[in-house]
Amino acid sequence: MEREAAREPIEEHEQGEPCVPYDENRVKRFDILKINHGVRQQVEDTLVLESPLTIFLNDEELVTLLCTPEDIKFLAVGFLAAEGLLAGKDDIAKIVTDEDKGVVWVETVKNREMARDMVFKRLITSACGKGTTFYNVVDASACQPVSSDVTITADQALHLAEEMQRHSLLYKDTGGVHNAALADSGKILIFGEDIGRHNAIDKIYGRCILEGIPIHDKIILTTGRISSEILLKVVKNQIPVIISRSAPTTLAVNLARKLGITVVGFARGKRMNIYSHEERIV
Amino acid sequence: MEREAAREPIEEHEQGEPCVPYDENRVKRFDILKINHGVRQQVEDTLVLESPLTIFLNDEELVTLLCTPEDIKFLAVGFLAAEGLLAGKDDIAKIVTDEDKGVVWVETVKNREMARDMVFKRLITSACGKGTTFYNVVDASACQPVSSDVTITADQALHLAEEMQRHSLLYKDTGGVHNAALADSGKILIFGEDIGRHNAIDKIYGRCILEGIPIHDKIILTTGRISSEILLKVVKNQIPVIISRSAPTTLAVNLARKLGITVVGFARGKRMNIYSHEERIV
Repeated sequence: MEREAAREPIEEHEQGEPCVPYDENRVKRFDILKINHGVRQQVEDTLVLESPLTIFLNDEELVTLLCTPEDIKFLAVGFLAAEGLLAGKDDIAKIVTDEDKGVVWVETVKNREMARDMVFKRLITSACGKGTTFYNVVDASACQPVSSDVTITADQALHLAEEMQRHSLLYKDTGGVHNAALADSGKILIFGEDIGRHNAIDKIYGRCILEGIPIHDKIILTTGRISSEILLKVVKNQIPVIISRSAPTTLAVNLARKLGITVVGFARGKRMNIYSHEERIV
Repeated sequence: MEREAAREPIEEHEQGEPCVPYDENRVKRFDILKINHGVRQQVEDTLVLESPLTIFLNDEELVTLLCTPEDIKFLAVGFLAAEGLLAGKDDIAKIVTDEDKGVVWVETVKNREMARDMVFKRLITSACGKGTTFYNVVDASACQPVSSDVTITADQALHLAEEMQRHSLLYKDTGGVHNAALADSGKILIFGEDIGRHNAIDKIYGRCILEGIPIHDKIILTTGRISSEILLKVVKNQIPVIISRSAPTTLAVNLARKLGITVVGFARGKRMNIYSHEERIV
């Protein structure tokens, strides 16, 4: 395909048949100039769509995120829940989405004041509990440690990581998105992708909330680095295992060790590194 | 080295001698479990430090960023300038840093009120001009288009991208950071690295401001994706060329075409894609 010829892949990955065909509204084709060993050629290239999504909560304009404009309802709900502004499905009175304008309106059963200030504060400080700034959270006092009997074999973990990557046709075509997935030990249940690694995970959370899928006994997979912010998203949802194709940071590993999360990094091919709570990888 | 044996590299890169030895305070060693083709082995792995940096502006606690705790003074100044809270070096009355606590205090000559609200708004909406929310900015009316005679050959661009990658010993050891660099057509002048791709670029801006290095006639290199937010950072500084080893998004390319920025993506080996204003790649 011409669009594939326009670049080298970001990394090698399995060339199996993609499982998820993607909506053409998620990408756009551009005429570009490709230079390959000094040869200049006009080609068509496929880029991932980035567009603004504005979330209104109870008629208050809360935030504008930049995202891949797919599953915006899930993203809005997942974002609100992650920020502590939604308790769960029962807390939602109404959701209206306008995909063309990139707007989602969410109405909660209980009106929440000061939501905007709270989100602003939280987005910057990545608080774990309300009103707790990030650097106080490092001692994890505001977070509930995760205790779970979930286990997974190393082969299953590697298989899931490979499966997530194969799943993503959008990644193959654009090289510009992060993937995330929710899985049990056997298979991937939900798939999320977005230009932002936070958004990709929030889309999964939002879908679980709206569709009533339990999440605390599952495994999260991501192509992105595991920073402390990603780790805290996992803690908040009481998910016991996170597996990434990339690296974790020191802060994420320290939090994971204290809070009972299994962190697996560099899960590629036949290799993986287990940074915390290895007892769940059997 | 044992620490290298603990993982596969994220991607292939040149194995030349690194130019920049790194401070051991930037990384930390962890005992981890490595699984390779089913063989379990306890090894030592090197992780990139992530820690909070709190910025005070005129005695007001402004923001806490998560970053790699190196060049924190440059990061604080670059962040404030990017957010429109610092006009330049002459605007700085005093800077005090406490590396152990992760705090930088900046005092400006002219006291600025409402800085905090402004930053909060801007961090979410990625405004280009003060008070302009992001989605109004897509038509670029608030941004000054870049006009510059800077040119670079394709070979020089590829050489710089390779040079940036080779430069980063921290990346080699941890696989967890983004690199950025400021260059002229011939060589890299300033190098920045951080767990965040925004921070890596802000460290470069901050250093340019404090050391009086002109930036508008230079080239920015990054290992990260070119999103609209990254593109707007480049526009604000009137830099004519940005080169990445990764993908750009649709919004970034559309803005670049309107605002006169040359965007090069997937600059690897002997290949590159030019998405806008190819006249500067000669």
